[in-house]
Amino acid sequence: MSSVDLNSDLGEGFGRWNLGDDAAMLALVSSANVACGFHAGDPATIRRTVRLAVGRGVAIGAHVGYRDLAGFGRRRMDVPSEELQADVAYQVGALAGLAAAEGGRVTYVKPHGALYNTAAVDERVARDVAEAVAAVDPSLVMLGLPGSPALAAASSAGLATAAEAFADRAYRADGTLVPRSEPGAVLHDPDDVARRMLRLATEGVVEAVDGTLVPVRADSICVHGDSPGAVAMAGRVRAVLLDAGVRVQAFAPADVRA
Amino acid sequence: MSSVDLNSDLGEGFGRWNLGDDAAMLALVSSANVACGFHAGDPATIRRTVRLAVGRGVAIGAHVGYRDLAGFGRRRMDVPSEELQADVAYQVGALAGLAAAEGGRVTYVKPHGALYNTAAVDERVARDVAEAVAAVDPSLVMLGLPGSPALAAASSAGLATAAEAFADRAYRADGTLVPRSEPGAVLHDPDDVARRMLRLATEGVVEAVDGTLVPVRADSICVHGDSPGAVAMAGRVRAVLLDAGVRVQAFAPADVRA
Amino acid sequence: MSSVDLNSDLGEGFGRWNLGDDAAMLALVSSANVACGFHAGDPATIRRTVRLAVGRGVAIGAHVGYRDLAGFGRRRMDVPSEELQADVAYQVGALAGLAAAEGGRVTYVKPHGALYNTAAVDERVARDVAEAVAAVDPSLVMLGLPGSPALAAASSAGLATAAEAFADRAYRADGTLVPRSEPGAVLHDPDDVARRMLRLATEGVVEAVDGTLVPVRADSICVHGDSPGAVAMAGRVRAVLLDAGVRVQAFAPADVRA
Amino acid sequence: MSSVDLNSDLGEGFGRWNLGDDAAMLALVSSANVACGFHAGDPATIRRTVRLAVGRGVAIGAHVGYRDLAGFGRRRMDVPSEELQADVAYQVGALAGLAAAEGGRVTYVKPHGALYNTAAVDERVARDVAEAVAAVDPSLVMLGLPGSPALAAASSAGLATAAEAFADRAYRADGTLVPRSEPGAVLHDPDDVARRMLRLATEGVVEAVDGTLVPVRADSICVHGDSPGAVAMAGRVRAVLLDAGVRVQAFAPADVRA
Repeated sequence: MSSVDLNSDLGEGFGRWNLGDDAAMLALVSSANVACGFHAGDPATIRRTVRLAVGRGVAIGAHVGYRDLAGFGRRRMDVPSEELQADVAYQVGALAGLAAAEGGRVTYVKPHGALYNTAAVDERVARDVAEAVAAVDPSLVMLGLPGSPALAAASSAGLATAAEAFADRAYRADGTLVPRSEPGAVLHDPDDVARRMLRLATEGVVEAVDGTLVPVRADSICVHGDSPGAVAMAGRVRAVLLDAGVRVQAFAPADVRA
Repeated sequence: MSSVDLNSDLGEGFGRWNLGDDAAMLALVSSANVACGFHAGDPATIRRTVRLAVGRGVAIGAHVGYRDLAGFGRRRMDVPSEELQADVAYQVGALAGLAAAEGGRVTYVKPHGALYNTAAVDERVARDVAEAVAAVDPSLVMLGLPGSPALAAASSAGLATAAEAFADRAYRADGTLVPRSEPGAVLHDPDDVARRMLRLATEGVVEAVDGTLVPVRADSICVHGDSPGAVAMAGRVRAVLLDAGVRVQAFAPADVRA
Repeated sequence: MSSVDLNSDLGEGFGRWNLGDDAAMLALVSSANVACGFHAGDPATIRRTVRLAVGRGVAIGAHVGYRDLAGFGRRRMDVPSEELQADVAYQVGALAGLAAAEGGRVTYVKPHGALYNTAAVDERVARDVAEAVAAVDPSLVMLGLPGSPALAAASSAGLATAAEAFADRAYRADGTLVPRSEPGAVLHDPDDVARRMLRLATEGVVEAVDGTLVPVRADSICVHGDSPGAVAMAGRVRAVLLDAGVRVQAFAPADVRA
Repeated sequence: MSSVDLNSDLGEGFGRWNLGDDAAMLALVSSANVACGFHAGDPATIRRTVRLAVGRGVAIGAHVGYRDLAGFGRRRMDVPSEELQADVAYQVGALAGLAAAEGGRVTYVKPHGALYNTAAVDERVARDVAEAVAAVDPSLVMLGLPGSPALAAASSAGLATAAEAFADRAYRADGTLVPRSEPGAVLHDPDDVARRMLRLATEGVVEAVDGTLVPVRADSICVHGDSPGAVAMAGRVRAVLLDAGVRVQAFAPADVRA
């Protein structure tokens, strides 16, 4: 019987401001990418999310981002290596402190937003992130785009890696994502999305926009947590996977590494 | 042969802004209270300070404060328990992440500024700090004012405690500090300060403003790091202690707990 | 024919995070207390709210608060006078800049959250706020609690004042608000609330919790903007006032002062 | 008799952290580029600088930057137009509020750090800055690099412009600055610098690194305020200009526009 991980971005409120329904998503996913305070997530919000994740047995990942609350970490920033590496180590540690306070632990790292996008194409940034993570804890797993500098740099730094697919994104025939600027880049039908992800989990392929079947490595499937309909889509993906006998389980569970 | 710890507030720059001479102070003290980013200390600054501390074998403490960069953590804030506890756990974890990245570890916690002052008189705040620290890592030592709620709450939370005296502060006959608002509260003569601290380290007493000798518990002596003359005064205290055969060593060294 | 102002807290999102429905509220109120970036409101959010307010002819007030995004300005802070005065002047100016960019202007000031509550009881803080506002622009009106130090200090500083009542709050026989910690402090029935506010606008009285009729000075009625049902309640208050021939108009409209 | 402006970056402390000697520089320059809180400058620091500037009759300019305290506004950020324009308007307004509180006014704008560098080459960013400034107050003058998109966009937006030269920077034969990455880019000898600036002020030329004389438009000369020796160099430039009968006066004085 095969298995796959479902991951989602959580803990993305800040103080008075909520975003997404963490409690609902944590009943569906096996890995929680938890904001670390730089793009979102004040400590109390983070701690509540971590507590729920520990209670559900959901793996906790550090969703590290640029220091940019006003831009939600979505604005590219030219951060020198020394600063970026320290920023990443700081965020991983901060989340680890809150996880420890709730009896849990951080088992993986996934860059957020503009840092994710930059680390997926820029080797210097990818290396900075990987080396910072490895310096803090070499047992952490790096989650990222298959074939990207982000994962290559992680491997070079001695980290285990996990590749993710995006449930609601269209793919091109070369296995890359259709850019959001193009029509049809984002899929909206939960049944369609769920069927595609079942095929990915069981056959390792995704149907590209031109109809060809593309092999895609996916240790994890990213389902969004903050859009309207997010919970419904994640629930549909999970249900279709379970119905077909695919287990939903974390690629980096805390218990395996404790 | 007796021994005592010297502690100082370090890592208190932020980005472009420097404060104090960390490299010079780290050659003199045995414990570094390192800012954690809430009142001062961006990650790159913190990491540089931690690297120097690890290289010198200086113990690393988390100098946790209120989230108030503009006020340097010196402004009292009414922070509800859930938020304060999460803020403390976040800061301790963040520093621990940077310490780990440099091959070191955090072995104690000392609240900063307004949080220090509040935890020294307010049992609720003292308990919040202590419980947060214990939740993150029960092996951490709490450094604070002898006889204060801060240390009592730490003991109740199962933490070891260390008491500190202030090298450049005058004491009253009841063993409390002369408030800064009163004349003579702060001492400026390095020789005088050093002689007082030698007597404290060897006899356990401080001469109060009325001339009486007051017993004061002091596992550590706080020397300031950011004023003009700070390095000179710390150096004088250290030299006088060493000359008299008093060892300067951390109350919570990393190697003991590794 | 009598008239009264309706005011509401708006512009309280921050970057990715939305709060309340500014567009809907701006169709109902005559004065917008717009966040200035310290407790909420990034510049782009503020500017969008100001643009809508200018388009609707709604008066723009500076909703100045403590520098505390994580606490939404709801945590009391001990801010020294020099800093508090500068913080207030900075916020009023920042909002004025964005208002000018949209062809509007700031005509009044209302402190937010913990600053509102503190200025309502603490004369030093009330004076700091008033003097800062008067220094920036003596034609600004101060909106606050009737009979409070906030308005007394404003008058002393040469500012015009406006008193506000709270639509959804219960009053005691002495004209003060029932504290939120007590049962019945907050009213939830839109019809009941609307009837009370009509009586206030036309007779100048509110029915207190003990059934007595209390005279209350109210140049403006505060309706909340960020709770579920906020728009419905504000709409009901407005409708009942208009049906009874009470005009809803700003106490400090931009056109009067232009 | 000819005249030229001397400008310097001031108000760049933040809370506990000082930077440069504003009082000394304000005795030497005719225009103060005052930080607006995004890259540096808390409100109390800004207000103190503005007060000194008003007392000295020094023109006040808004030194607007990216929202990046940790990076001192020196890190390039991809900020969308709506956000960048609002950020600029917010900062200009905030400084204007503090200036008004001290009886002064903002008469010009100069972008800071990475925003300055980006606006000097990127037309979109240059236009965003210019349009935001023009929207807040079309009488503001834009100070920038001669021949740059920053000044071209300002002109297109209807703003007056002023061009600046850099006192301690070497020039190439085409009139552009030698990049900081190249040897000899920064000049250190005050006498040499002063002589060059005198020639610029009186003849409109600078001697390039290859010895040729390059015509350079300079309504203002930028002297740095935060490096060791900054005050001495600025003083030397001023003295040499005055000795030669060149007046040092603001290109956008407050009194002309009051």
